[in-house]
Amino acid sequence: MRAEIITIGDELLIGQVVDTNSAFMAQILNKNGIEIYQVTSVHDDGEHILRAVAEALSRVDIVITTGGLGPTKDDITKHVLCDFFGATLIPSVQVEQHVRKLYADRPDVLNRLTETQWLVPDKCTVLANRVGSAPLMAFEKDGKLLFSLPGVPYEMEIAMREQVMPFIAAKRPTNETIIHRTIQVAGIPESALAIHIEDWENALPPAIHLAYLPKDGIIRLRLSGYFDKNDTSAQLAIDEQIKQLEKLVDEWLVVTEDKPFEVVVGELLKAKHATIATAESCTGGKLASLLNKHAGSSDFYKGSVVAYSNEVKEKVLNVSKTNLELFGAVSEQVVSQMAEGVRKLMNTDYALATSGVAGPGGGTPQKPVGTVWIAIATPQKIFTELLHLKGEREQITDRACTKVLTKLIKYLQD
Amino acid sequence: MRAEIITIGDELLIGQVVDTNSAFMAQILNKNGIEIYQVTSVHDDGEHILRAVAEALSRVDIVITTGGLGPTKDDITKHVLCDFFGATLIPSVQVEQHVRKLYADRPDVLNRLTETQWLVPDKCTVLANRVGSAPLMAFEKDGKLLFSLPGVPYEMEIAMREQVMPFIAAKRPTNETIIHRTIQVAGIPESALAIHIEDWENALPPAIHLAYLPKDGIIRLRLSGYFDKNDTSAQLAIDEQIKQLEKLVDEWLVVTEDKPFEVVVGELLKAKHATIATAESCTGGKLASLLNKHAGSSDFYKGSVVAYSNEVKEKVLNVSKTNLELFGAVSEQVVSQMAEGVRKLMNTDYALATSGVAGPGGGTPQKPVGTVWIAIATPQKIFTELLHLKGEREQITDRACTKVLTKLIKYLQD
Repeated sequence: MRAEIITIGDELLIGQVVDTNSAFMAQILNKNGIEIYQVTSVHDDGEHILRAVAEALSRVDIVITTGGLGPTKDDITKHVLCDFFGATLIPSVQVEQHVRKLYADRPDVLNRLTETQWLVPDKCTVLANRVGSAPLMAFEKDGKLLFSLPGVPYEMEIAMREQVMPFIAAKRPTNETIIHRTIQVAGIPESALAIHIEDWENALPPAIHLAYLPKDGIIRLRLSGYFDKNDTSAQLAIDEQIKQLEKLVDEWLVVTEDKPFEVVVGELLKAKHATIATAESCTGGKLASLLNKHAGSSDFYKGSVVAYSNEVKEKVLNVSKTNLELFGAVSEQVVSQMAEGVRKLMNTDYALATSGVAGPGGGTPQKPVGTVWIAIATPQKIFTELLHLKGEREQITDRACTKVLTKLIKYLQD
Repeated sequence: MRAEIITIGDELLIGQVVDTNSAFMAQILNKNGIEIYQVTSVHDDGEHILRAVAEALSRVDIVITTGGLGPTKDDITKHVLCDFFGATLIPSVQVEQHVRKLYADRPDVLNRLTETQWLVPDKCTVLANRVGSAPLMAFEKDGKLLFSLPGVPYEMEIAMREQVMPFIAAKRPTNETIIHRTIQVAGIPESALAIHIEDWENALPPAIHLAYLPKDGIIRLRLSGYFDKNDTSAQLAIDEQIKQLEKLVDEWLVVTEDKPFEVVVGELLKAKHATIATAESCTGGKLASLLNKHAGSSDFYKGSVVAYSNEVKEKVLNVSKTNLELFGAVSEQVVSQMAEGVRKLMNTDYALATSGVAGPGGGTPQKPVGTVWIAIATPQKIFTELLHLKGEREQITDRACTKVLTKLIKYLQD
């Protein structure tokens, strides 16, 4: 079964907002055997929305739109869908009761514009929006489904999980299943990797497709297949292929799943009942923020010091003044002392440290922008590595984080 | 003049990668007077790419595609464009020399797959890709332009800035200009705000369009207009309208530009020659990472302590054990001591602190998930505020950061 996503909003087309909704929707639809054929972003413009909806419905079975459901004048999706389906707006008691309850303690929100939120097209099924005032609408026409969801990511996510997916499962059960298997490798260029696995790739069954996703020094290799739910042998075939691939790339293999590296680090630390802290200069708290991004991080993560100034490196992390003066902040000596300093300060098993020149300023002929020292302090030993990273400030920071997490994963796996 | 963007890659349609390229491209095109009519994401599939390219070229003057230019088998854009434009791949000496130079120190990259990178369609202009091996291609047909760029964001960004924009300016100079003006308000619901400014909105000239963008408690109000470059009076009209709007919403106005709040904080601190540090529990380094995200942050930002465990709060930030035991980590007493503790430790003028329950675990009836204390320590006084935030772990963290930055901006503006 195929679906399309239409994201509605001028903000997407002038670059004021990045569309993160489509990726979330695609993931959850894929997990339920529904392929996304196309994503289209259109203006808050009646004709444009109408054309996109008509075209998408002509191509696929399910269309999901996001955006344009707010109470203000620039939000027109509900009216456009009335035109498309020949529907009329009528008051919904269900939505009114919900909205009144939602804002019971907010009389400033219960005004005449908010009241328009409980007007809904008479030709749709209204699904409950647990966390917002915009109605979730499901239309059916010629055997096809169209859902209209709010553009606010948090509301859309809950709507997809709690309302849209069960509605589709009930109305359009499918025997199809989509399987993606991803492994992540590092330390080999994409082209060299492709040559290395060429014979295996050429012998893949036609139903299994390989994709390469290089980013920040990591290459994600993904096998995808679209199968019938009952055809278990086809599903076993993809598992068999991924095992063969893992053996072929063993030398460069970091992770055998499509998980963020910080999640893998967390799992490895939890399994060892070990704790971690970070001391960061150029990565400026990004490592900290990655390590505690996911639920349950307090099991292994204790804290961090972002030591942007040398004063903080000395005073809080106990880096020696002599090292700072002799070797500079971006040096093996200083990054080692940062890692060991924070490990002792926070009383953890492991510690990560970074010190480098993220740019755009601060580079010298000896230490140009992109020069980054990383360190991992363990109970036994401190490991260091000098990186020469390419890119601009943000890429350098991201790549330094990826590098230090990769190094730690490799160490913890041994 | 209008353009469309086509992003190519299965990874976009299975939700493995978020499309950040379109927003970057839309911004830079808008700045140069070019409107984006539509963004379309399509599969690595020849027929799909061909249809999308043909449809986009039928609607607009300029089409830009990203992705599908790597050296591996799943990358097919170059071949599809040869089909579309009736072109043949021929070796390019210019690209070959560039690629050989780029990988002079990487013999493992200079293999037979990388060699295919210097095969280019004979009917395109090859533009220089300073940082990668994929050729940037510009096609012209029936007075329209099509550019094919790599999907790697860093390569695409440099290509847009250094090659595509100058090429368009030379080939298709335009007299059009697009002006967006955004102000940011907080502390009023979107619907109440819309009612408050209704008369003004209804009286806007037809050439000026208003949009509301609510997120994390902030509402961005954007005025947009498409003008002729020589029609300066129309451009003045938008400035005049934004001034009127600022007066109308003065009570809730936070920032009069479309800048991230951390950038505004940085500017205000620099103007005062003041420095800042952060002490974070539930925001886990996100505040730190925001404050030093942009170039020049070492002028005002000195460092942070992420104190996830109580042990670190006590030992590093000097929070009293009594307060932790009596009031708990999520309390006014503790967040105040965290702010003052890091201000003294890092010897700064200001400090921000957060302590809360980001969830999903850790909530109690007294302090449910979303309970967050924030503090701002100044040389004179410590300001605190109790927040009851809605959402999941990531929203709560983001909203807490936005709240504390908003509070600091308001304080520094006074």
